Amino acid sequence: MFRIVPATADDTLLILELIHGLAEYERALPEEVPVTAKDLRESLFGEHPAAEVLLAFEGDAAAGFAVFFHNYSTWMGKRGMYLEDLFVKPEFRGRGYGKALLAEVARIARDRGCPRFEWSVLYWNTPAIGFYNNLGAKPKGEWTIFRLTGEALRDL
Amino acid sequence: MFRIVPATADDTLLILELIHGLAEYERALPEEVPVTAKDLRESLFGEHPAAEVLLAFEGDAAAGFAVFFHNYSTWMGKRGMYLEDLFVKPEFRGRGYGKALLAEVARIARDRGCPRFEWSVLYWNTPAIGFYNNLGAKPKGEWTIFRLTGEALRDL
Repeated sequence: MFRIVPATADDTLLILELIHGLAEYERALPEEVPVTAKDLRESLFGEHPAAEVLLAFEGDAAAGFAVFFHNYSTWMGKRGMYLEDLFVKPEFRGRGYGKALLAEVARIARDRGCPRFEWSVLYWNTPAIGFYNNLGAKPKGEWTIFRLTGEALRDL
Repeated sequence: MFRIVPATADDTLLILELIHGLAEYERALPEEVPVTAKDLRESLFGEHPAAEVLLAFEGDAAAGFAVFFHNYSTWMGKRGMYLEDLFVKPEFRGRGYGKALLAEVARIARDRGCPRFEWSVLYWNTPAIGFYNNLGAKPKGEWTIFRLTGEALRDL
């Protein structure tokens, strides 16, 4: 009944629904999540996919998803794996879907020779942080991400 | 006398030297920086480049470099730009190379339709943080990066 499968273009609307579910969980404002089905189809299933998606199903129902892409480490001289999103719908939590999705991305990372598997977590998400600590993941607390958007990006 | 150019495979050893310069600045231990020229040549200039490199020259002397790749935002449904490394050799600092490299990566990001340009900074690197704040970049202080490597990655 439990399946984890790579998403295809036919799953575009399902992915959009999961993104909106995650955005709600992360308390995003609607204007912070302008993504459309067209954006997803082009960016994930076009000629040069910018990320990959795994879907978890329980029977025919989508339980959650993982979105990931390759980052790069100059110190290693190798690409690594970066998990952009991991989300399990509230009604499917506590059944191992989150760990199964994470493990499948880790397997792909290992198969592709990535020495590192990384992701980011919101400081208030203590259930997630406990879960990641239990897996042996280490927080890189000395690093802060900076972001440039809109006018400041154009100006530079 | 001042040039910023995309690196080619012929620049592999130069890039390795700049990586080691950056690692020294970031107080890395030698075992944290196992990268070899072979790793760089394969990962940056092979069939599927994992990142791109810009080099800054003053005359014939390499002054610094920027290493970047595309990340992905599900909320935007678009790829963004991530700057992995930005480094200017100590003897070339204060001449605008850092800003020129950053601006060139920002230009490439804009040309490719990336709504976001992101990078990470070490908390003690106050000159860099002041520089980034002046550009209008915003710290994403609510996010912590987690990393899984070695045995913990294999176990998962």
